[in-house]
Amino acid sequence: MSDTTPKGAAAQVAGKPCILCCAITGSLPTKANNPAVPITVSEQIESSHAAFEAGATIIHAHVRNDDETPSSDPDKFLALKEGLEKHCPGVIVQFSTGGRSGAGKTRGGMLLHRPDMASLSVGSNNFPTRVYENPPDLVEWLASEMTRYGVTPEVEAFDLGHILQAIALHKAGTLPGKLYVQFVMGVKNAMPADEEVFDFYAHVMATRAPDAEWCAAGIGAQQLRINEWAIAKGGHTRA
Amino acid sequence: MSDTTPKGAAAQVAGKPCILCCAITGSLPTKANNPAVPITVSEQIESSHAAFEAGATIIHAHVRNDDETPSSDPDKFLALKEGLEKHCPGVIVQFSTGGRSGAGKTRGGMLLHRPDMASLSVGSNNFPTRVYENPPDLVEWLASEMTRYGVTPEVEAFDLGHILQAIALHKAGTLPGKLYVQFVMGVKNAMPADEEVFDFYAHVMATRAPDAEWCAAGIGAQQLRINEWAIAKGGHTRA
Ligand SMILES: [Zn+2]
Ligand SMILES: [Zn+2]
Ligand SMILES: [Zn+2]
Ligand SMILES: [Zn+2]
Repeated sequence: MSDTTPKGAAAQVAGKPCILCCAITGSLPTKANNPAVPITVSEQIESSHAAFEAGATIIHAHVRNDDETPSSDPDKFLALKEGLEKHCPGVIVQFSTGGRSGAGKTRGGMLLHRPDMASLSVGSNNFPTRVYENPPDLVEWLASEMTRYGVTPEVEAFDLGHILQAIALHKAGTLPGKLYVQFVMGVKNAMPADEEVFDFYAHVMATRAPDAEWCAAGIGAQQLRINEWAIAKGGHTRA
Repeated sequence: MSDTTPKGAAAQVAGKPCILCCAITGSLPTKANNPAVPITVSEQIESSHAAFEAGATIIHAHVRNDDETPSSDPDKFLALKEGLEKHCPGVIVQFSTGGRSGAGKTRGGMLLHRPDMASLSVGSNNFPTRVYENPPDLVEWLASEMTRYGVTPEVEAFDLGHILQAIALHKAGTLPGKLYVQFVMGVKNAMPADEEVFDFYAHVMATRAPDAEWCAAGIGAQQLRINEWAIAKGGHTRA
């Protein structure tokens, strides 16, 4: 939950929270915007603990520097993981590899701490004010690191092509473990929250990757509609 | 035609050639790869002339530097346009604004020469070895320059989100003139040549932008299949 819950970016699908990478909100929430935003690792652990007690089964985790800017510091990720395992026994820990522009391989530097899952983008797209850059060689490298450390990726799909790419990479053996895809909608200059497109996404998953699981997340006001679509159209839950 | 014909990237749809921006081939063809590649402005004019006599009604134009690297030189674009108007009377001249990474506003520096049309990307995506970067502020600026100089854009859509973005921008008045969309498929790490997706694209255009025209282009071996789909599924021709 951590950073995204205060912005309302978590989509609860039949008991499974699907958490949208906060990177897409553009300027990240800070204490100045919202005093409830958990910034330190201890705050994130306690915020996640509350979510866990409310039924969350997966925690999507970012970490921050002391100045509240986004961090990829592997030590902070390790401390967060250890805290989550202690306070939220059995929870699925998912590290974010969502990137700031140009961050490159530092985006995957925490994978050696072997979280259960990690988010993975397999294509590029526009965000409200910039390009969300996921060049092919970085995608390949992140997937190989996840394979190396036994981390199951969850693909954040911002467009139809990303879904097809995820299925193709999974078939090719590039993505380890079971295939998980999260549809992300409602981000300005990326895919809007569109029910017909959502239905097509669900159809593509059902027919081309029947063993995969998918969920969906939206931004702000779109979130509740997208939750309803996901529940109605067969978004999977994690047992 | 110019640069792309020798690579076979032109999709002829019921008499209307839809030319795929050669930028997506990654490394551009040079004389060293293929002696038939037209490089100089005079060679491009003569190659276009031949295509025109064979029935082409639109010429998608790039220009090159003397060392065969891609150029955005407005003077070269002007010389090409003047040559095309003389050798191919009545042909529709379309300038490419397709970009090399990071080229920024130089990509639109030739629009002041008022071609009939210009290609426009409205989103970002992956190419075989890199990110095809079209950040929102550049898209907005290119569209405003096209509006200023009376140039009709043709949107090169590499994913479903680009089609929806084109329709939204056209409705908002950001894209001048009639809406033209070209579906581009078969580029590695972008949308594959997929008939079900093609059908969905055509359905989206027919229901959401019934006054628009669309065509389709593929890469290499995919080109003939995509031509057949476009003809079968109602890709428009330019009168
Ligand atoms: Zn995230
Ligand atoms: Zn606790
Ligand atoms: Zn081109
Ligand atoms: Zn001639």
